[in-house]
Formats: sequence, structure tokens, C-alpha cells
Amino acid sequence: MTPGAIEYPLRMARWQPDARGRLQEAALALYDERGFENTTVAQIAEQAGLTKRTFFRYFADKREVLFWGAKALEELFVSEVVSAPSSATPLEAMVAALDAAAATFEDGREYAARRQHIIAANPELQERELIKLSLLARTVAQALRERGVEDSAATFTAEAGVTVFRVAFELWVRESNRRGLKALIHESLDELRAVTAV
Amino acid sequence: MTPGAIEYPLRMARWQPDARGRLQEAALALYDERGFENTTVAQIAEQAGLTKRTFFRYFADKREVLFWGAKALEELFVSEVVSAPSSATPLEAMVAALDAAAATFEDGREYAARRQHIIAANPELQERELIKLSLLARTVAQALRERGVEDSAATFTAEAGVTVFRVAFELWVRESNRRGLKALIHESLDELRAVTAV
Repeated sequence: MTPGAIEYPLRMARWQPDARGRLQEAALALYDERGFENTTVAQIAEQAGLTKRTFFRYFADKREVLFWGAKALEELFVSEVVSAPSSATPLEAMVAALDAAAATFEDGREYAARRQHIIAANPELQERELIKLSLLARTVAQALRERGVEDSAATFTAEAGVTVFRVAFELWVRESNRRGLKALIHESLDELRAVTAV
Repeated sequence: MTPGAIEYPLRMARWQPDARGRLQEAALALYDERGFENTTVAQIAEQAGLTKRTFFRYFADKREVLFWGAKALEELFVSEVVSAPSSATPLEAMVAALDAAAATFEDGREYAARRQHIIAANPELQERELIKLSLLARTVAQALRERGVEDSAATFTAEAGVTVFRVAFELWVRESNRRGLKALIHESLDELRAVTAV
């Protein structure tokens, strides 16, 4: 399962074995329709044709429906950073991780856009998203240090990488965008280089 | 009053008119001694020789004692970014803001170190600090856009600037450090440039 993404196509019939996907789809539809704060776990379960008990087998609470992919994303970044060739510069290791992350998201653009829309409507969710990205950067910095990258250089590389990812991701989910996430990441990287060079 | 800093010297006598400073000093002492989570507003007020009512005249809650300077820091960054010469590049405008911020902190190193120590001991406070820095970067990015800096370039410059500030600040509060915050900021900037160039 790709981080933050959803399995496609989503089939909503009762015999569909992907309970997680059904709960996620139901939650997103309800959050969008009546707002995150006005939706209950019972409503999500009902809409998905499942029980509350099943909901809690997959998610700790209704917020986690939107954030459960964060751990997988973090693990992907770390494993790519750690396994990059030893000749790679810190930024090259970071870019390898960004490329790998882009590949896992490529099919999940519609879901990502819906999720983004819901988060933008709720300050508590926005805070959670900020924390998620900050923690991601700190974890990646730690992975870079394990490659032997010096303390501050690791922080700068990881923070730059996560900001590039965030900016490219935000461009990617916009309705007007028709480019791939990977291409946007590389454009953003060039832009980052340009602003820090002068 | 400088952002996040405390007026020096701190006089603890009852006639001292700086109630905010006394409350802040009392809070820090108690947070350090018994932990943030085990300290109550009543205890802080008592230790400062003041009433709970006075406490709430200055701070919304016990957490705000550690974060009330964030607004002033944000305003300082924004005003410096906005008022930088029109010939300044985005990064130069950002650096002007970092230098101005460094100047306001220069006398508050001991307080900053104590504050950092308390925040490091409490996950909720760490989250609040992450959010504070993320919001600072977003506000500064907005100020850069008002200078005419393009959308993503503004984000990259602001995020880079806030990361530089954070890294330099963390080095500065370390006991072993004997350099000034401004010098550390410029060293960090050079390091950031070096990692993004390759």
C-alpha cells in the first residue's frame, strides 16, 4: 500500500475484502460532505457497511484515516537514504528518496487532492500535517547521519528535501496541473538551488 | 521585549514591577524541577508571589509561558523581510531578518537554553515548537511574496531561513558554544549553500 494513497479501483460493494480502503473512502466522502469535525466513527463505519469495531481494527481514531500512511512514507524515505550508493552526496541520497516516494504516489493523485482539500479546511488537521512533515524531516536527517553526513548538513539536506517534496506535491494535486510528481520534484529542486545560490 | 527572551537582570523581589518576567522565571524553575506536566498555574503564581488572576493577565495557560514570544519573532521577521531594500534577493531579505532576530536574542542565551531543555523533555511542547517554526516559515514566505517573490521561491527561501535559524540557535544554546548567534547563522547559511549546491 502506498503511503497516503488508496488502492485503485475502489469497489464499494459489501463483498469487497479491502475494509481499510472502504473505510478510507467512506471517511473522505463524509469529511468532504459534512466536515471532519462533524463526522463520527460510527457514521464512517455505517457508510462503509462495516462495524465500528472493524474501523478500530484499522485506525486508532478518525484523524488517523488521513495520516496512517505517514509511517510508510517515513520508512520509504529512510530506506532509500540509507541504501543510496556510498558515493552519493547527501542531496543525491535525498533525491533518490524523493524519486522513490514520487513513484509510489503516481497513481494516487485524485485521493491526494481530496485529502489535501479536507486538511486545508481544518486547523487541527493542518497542525497534524505540519508535525508529520517536521518529524519526517528529522527522521530523514537521522538517516543521513547514519550515512556519515555531518550533523547540520544532514538537517539542511533533509529539511530541503521535505520542503521540495511538499512544494512539488502541492503543485501536483492542483487541478490545473498535468505533470508528473517526479518532474515537479526536480523542477522544485532546481528552484531551491537557485534561491540558495544568490 | 525580545521574542522568547526574558528581561535581564531578573529581580525576584516582591516590589519588582515586571510581573511577566517573574511569572516566567517561576514557571521555568518549576518546569525544570518537577516537569512541565506536573506544574500548575497556581504553583507558578505562588512561586512568583502573585495571584493566578495576575498569571492569566499575561498568559492564556502554562504552555504559553514558553511560547508567547513567537508572535513578536514572527512580526520581526516579517517587518525585516518587507523593509529590506528592493534590490535585495529573496535570500538577502531573509538574511536581514535573521540578523535582526539574532540581535534581539543575543542577551538571552541562558534563558533560551533553559527553555530548550524544558521543551526537549516534553513531547507536547516539542510538537508546539515544531508548529511554531512551521508557521513562522509560512508567514515569512507570505511576506516574501508581498515583495514580489514567486510562490515556490518564497517557500524555499523562508523554509531555508527558518531551518538555518533553528540549527544556529541549537548550536548557540549548547553549553560548549562560545560564539555569537549571528556568526552561527552565517556559518549555517554557508553550510546550507554547500549541501544544496552538489
